[in-house]
Amino acid sequence: MKPGKFITLEGGEGAGKSTNALWIADYLRAQGKTVLVTREPGGTTVSEAIRGVLLSPELPAMDADTELLLMFAARNEHLRTKILPALAQGTWVICDRFTDATYAYQGYGRGISLERIAALENWVQGTLRPDYVILFDLDVETGMARAQARGQADRFEQEHTEFFTRIRAGYQARAAAMPAHYPQIDAAQPLEAVRAQLQALLERMLQADQPA
Amino acid sequence: MKPGKFITLEGGEGAGKSTNALWIADYLRAQGKTVLVTREPGGTTVSEAIRGVLLSPELPAMDADTELLLMFAARNEHLRTKILPALAQGTWVICDRFTDATYAYQGYGRGISLERIAALENWVQGTLRPDYVILFDLDVETGMARAQARGQADRFEQEHTEFFTRIRAGYQARAAAMPAHYPQIDAAQPLEAVRAQLQALLERMLQADQPA
Repeated sequence: MKPGKFITLEGGEGAGKSTNALWIADYLRAQGKTVLVTREPGGTTVSEAIRGVLLSPELPAMDADTELLLMFAARNEHLRTKILPALAQGTWVICDRFTDATYAYQGYGRGISLERIAALENWVQGTLRPDYVILFDLDVETGMARAQARGQADRFEQEHTEFFTRIRAGYQARAAAMPAHYPQIDAAQPLEAVRAQLQALLERMLQADQPA
Repeated sequence: MKPGKFITLEGGEGAGKSTNALWIADYLRAQGKTVLVTREPGGTTVSEAIRGVLLSPELPAMDADTELLLMFAARNEHLRTKILPALAQGTWVICDRFTDATYAYQGYGRGISLERIAALENWVQGTLRPDYVILFDLDVETGMARAQARGQADRFEQEHTEFFTRIRAGYQARAAAMPAHYPQIDAAQPLEAVRAQLQALLERMLQADQPA
């Protein structure tokens, strides 16, 4: 059985990852792929319980290293019990946020050393990395305005503009190091233009997946 | 300010750690020490929320590595926000379970490699280790009977006898490697004999803490 592709969607708040995840899945299904759409932190019963601890506005602010360990705990459960079994069965997995978000939010955002994050990434994932990281890039002001229009802000969305500016720069730094691995979508465009850009990207992925 | 001593209490289920933690604290307070009694997993609001995820009988069984990451997440928060500040102020900290329990339960009990546990221990604790690990040693059958008599079993207490036998052997292996660091209490004795053994041990700790 040929393993599925592991595609993660990354970007700041309000960049349209969640909405477009469903559209990407529909597109790939129409091309004959079996697709699983999931998200982090969460995706399993245990991981969603951990997500509840991470995002609860009722809990006091936690130490940055605690947040990081919880993220990787949720990720480990999600990988072992859901993502890896699906990939092994040939399913394409579309995951809304993954380890790049940890580098962007906890590393560039909160200032945890990238080396400490890499140590946990290797501890949990070994050599596993996404096949593609689709980066939805959007200026911070537009993203925050969109997120606020969605309703009550969770603990991350209550952060200040400088925090999200560092996050965007972090994503850009990671994409710049491996551009072929990090296709970018201009998320400031109207939805139709975003979809056209996504479709062209997915067509390239499907072509690359064909036997030569 | 002279830092306080960090004393952890370890052992299997029903060995009397929790009851004796309070007695040890009273004894040390009577000798003029400021004492904080705490426990793992837990000890802070965030850590207790993580403990809730770890011990919930409602959640499905989780991957052993997920359990390990959650344990160290709770521990990191406990250390940074409660234990280290207390020690720095000269408070003696009595902690019901710490990293030795992780080696015993997740390592020897569940079979996670000791090297993987050591990697997280170093990631979270750096070089910090307890000054003393008081090991309450008790045969498995007596311990399980005592734990069951206390009421409903949580997820760990529902494990089988072989699991607790491996845990006891794990504690013994760690104590054998550093016996002066791991004073042992024979927890099968009547309570008065346990207290006499504890008192002799605490007197030695207090003497060792005196300036020469």
